[in-house]
Amino acid sequence: MIVYLTRKEQFNAAHRLWVYDWSEEKNRSVFGNCSNKNFHGHNFKLFVTVKGTPNPETGMIINAKDLGRIMREQVVDVLDHTNLNLDPNFLDERLQTTTENLVIQIWHHLQRFLKDCDLHCVRLEETDKIAAEYYGE
Amino acid sequence: MIVYLTRKEQFNAAHRLWVYDWSEEKNRSVFGNCSNKNFHGHNFKLFVTVKGTPNPETGMIINAKDLGRIMREQVVDVLDHTNLNLDPNFLDERLQTTTENLVIQIWHHLQRFLKDCDLHCVRLEETDKIAAEYYGE
Amino acid sequence: MIVYLTRKEQFNAAHRLWVYDWSEEKNRSVFGNCSNKNFHGHNFKLFVTVKGTPNPETGMIINAKDLGRIMREQVVDVLDHTNLNLDPNFLDERLQTTTENLVIQIWHHLQRFLKDCDLHCVRLEETDKIAAEYYGE
Amino acid sequence: MIVYLTRKEQFNAAHRLWVYDWSEEKNRSVFGNCSNKNFHGHNFKLFVTVKGTPNPETGMIINAKDLGRIMREQVVDVLDHTNLNLDPNFLDERLQTTTENLVIQIWHHLQRFLKDCDLHCVRLEETDKIAAEYYGE
Amino acid sequence: MIVYLTRKEQFNAAHRLWVYDWSEEKNRSVFGNCSNKNFHGHNFKLFVTVKGTPNPETGMIINAKDLGRIMREQVVDVLDHTNLNLDPNFLDERLQTTTENLVIQIWHHLQRFLKDCDLHCVRLEETDKIAAEYYGE
Amino acid sequence: MIVYLTRKEQFNAAHRLWVYDWSEEKNRSVFGNCSNKNFHGHNFKLFVTVKGTPNPETGMIINAKDLGRIMREQVVDVLDHTNLNLDPNFLDERLQTTTENLVIQIWHHLQRFLKDCDLHCVRLEETDKIAAEYYGE
Repeated sequence: MIVYLTRKEQFNAAHRLWVYDWSEEKNRSVFGNCSNKNFHGHNFKLFVTVKGTPNPETGMIINAKDLGRIMREQVVDVLDHTNLNLDPNFLDERLQTTTENLVIQIWHHLQRFLKDCDLHCVRLEETDKIAAEYYGE
Repeated sequence: MIVYLTRKEQFNAAHRLWVYDWSEEKNRSVFGNCSNKNFHGHNFKLFVTVKGTPNPETGMIINAKDLGRIMREQVVDVLDHTNLNLDPNFLDERLQTTTENLVIQIWHHLQRFLKDCDLHCVRLEETDKIAAEYYGE
Repeated sequence: MIVYLTRKEQFNAAHRLWVYDWSEEKNRSVFGNCSNKNFHGHNFKLFVTVKGTPNPETGMIINAKDLGRIMREQVVDVLDHTNLNLDPNFLDERLQTTTENLVIQIWHHLQRFLKDCDLHCVRLEETDKIAAEYYGE
Repeated sequence: MIVYLTRKEQFNAAHRLWVYDWSEEKNRSVFGNCSNKNFHGHNFKLFVTVKGTPNPETGMIINAKDLGRIMREQVVDVLDHTNLNLDPNFLDERLQTTTENLVIQIWHHLQRFLKDCDLHCVRLEETDKIAAEYYGE
Repeated sequence: MIVYLTRKEQFNAAHRLWVYDWSEEKNRSVFGNCSNKNFHGHNFKLFVTVKGTPNPETGMIINAKDLGRIMREQVVDVLDHTNLNLDPNFLDERLQTTTENLVIQIWHHLQRFLKDCDLHCVRLEETDKIAAEYYGE
Repeated sequence: MIVYLTRKEQFNAAHRLWVYDWSEEKNRSVFGNCSNKNFHGHNFKLFVTVKGTPNPETGMIINAKDLGRIMREQVVDVLDHTNLNLDPNFLDERLQTTTENLVIQIWHHLQRFLKDCDLHCVRLEETDKIAAEYYGE
């Protein structure tokens, strides 16, 4: 019996989209106002889903408190109230900080700290209108 | 690496459920107050999910602004502030305008305009309590 | 000690904005696509607030279940899955069915059924972006 | 053509997590304040998803009103305003009332009343931050 | 220049409504299933609003972090994952734990810890449908 | 008869809190991680409320579409995808960009463009947990 458990946390960060090899004109044409040189920002909502069979005694796949703690220690405490492009973090600075790239990198970063259970999905909502999901494949 | 990107848009429309071959009594018995002859309406929330590998340079599967523009031009601008049963649109008038039938038809309509990426799911929320999803299968 | 108690209910209805004395052109210019002759619709969220001193024994201003029942019997059951312009209801058909006019009329209609407490506010959300409130003044 | 239809209902209940074979100290260490002997509670949001091909005439997989009625009669009316640990219900009293265990048991309980369609998923949100899903596998 | 600043926190608790001087029949007739002897529970959302003129240097009425800390220390940490009727807290045990009575008591309890600013409103949402507000009058 | 009409729009921006006359240590101690030198950001939700008597013919205080257009042209288009501290806008750069200061300045800025109706309230939600309101007093 496989159950999926999802936990939500949030971080507020600045970022911009910008390819250094491109002209300002091309950056502006591809990324629009997301390329603003002084950055903009979002309240990012992070959903992490693990899967597994509930422990017969505790009824848990993973203690939701532990999952929340790992998400906060490894992601929220690193990215919250920072600039995703400039501040030190686990993100590859050669990759654009699109929602798509963020979920992949958060997935691989979190996986190392979720050894005792099976990471299923990382979902990130950049705004109420835009979200990305990555399943490790 | 396959990432799923979801964009949300909204349209407000009137509709009713009614089978012309049935008596009023049978329509009322099957569809309840959804069959009201003067129509009723909803704020429909539309979520479109595409999947793909982020472009190495832009970090995007599809530019979320382009996805939003296509959803608005092809679906929202056609259906918003209209009557789904009476006004001209891309829906097959022989099919009931249930949430189930709407997601199938929106999927097939949108797919033609999303040639450069892979349409994964169309989700439509009719109310806070009722939603349908179609994955093209 | 005055406490304010708010209860939420919902109804889904069709409507349009249209002044019969005006030309189609003027209607379209003032009301835009809200004037579509085949109607459109919304999930209307209705919030009713009463005020008063909690009863020393029950701790209630009004039983929230009773408030909900009155809202459903007098407003939701009348307007839900109907056309606000065409179907029989308590609304004055000479008035446009704007959110502004709806809250005034729902306020005066509900007040007669809330004799035992003090109606404070009727709030109606037409969409996630538009709401109106009336306080009886 | 397979469409997924989801319906949401809600119930408000008390519960606690507690293994009778364990000491109070161990319970407190594993379950934290979820083990409080006088219970705590939640507004549980229940989402049930069925899948199938829309009926050619009605456009429905299952009438959403019927799905809602079954969810209320079989789950909400049994669990709402009760104590999940103490009051009579369909839950196995040897299992912890974690969100993980609840979705499995609600799935198996509901399946018997959804013979005419295909139960796909039971999702339960315990808080805005914690949810579990079960797909019957 | 008076600005209103609102902070939201949440606690999950069990409770019941019950007048000890009444028969079980009368309790059931007045409070319905809210009187269930084994309790039920809610995710209570607490909104505290203070008012004042922003400090010319910091731009703050009160540091939102401090307001959050006071709300958590004085209300959330006391009531979260408890039984409002049975566990030790600042509530008057002779008063019903209705949303109306809770906002009055939380207001008077919090006011003592918000000496440096002006407490304006305590709002408590018991469910998505029911909320109460108290302004200290 | 006075009705209150509220319209919501959104902008996503970067900012930081920092008093230039203070040491880094004092800034960090007062503003915490909100003082991060590389900025952070939010999805700001802006609610503008006007009050007035509905026009007898149109049923409107102000056309909600016009209110939305004014909000977007005067506030959203200026602040969206910008840095509130660095990019050119209507904000007084000597004032901290706290939610409290933002609502005052947005109120005074918008009032000039809402001559035909009565601006009642500007509400800004910085996160799901923090909001400020200003009523022009």
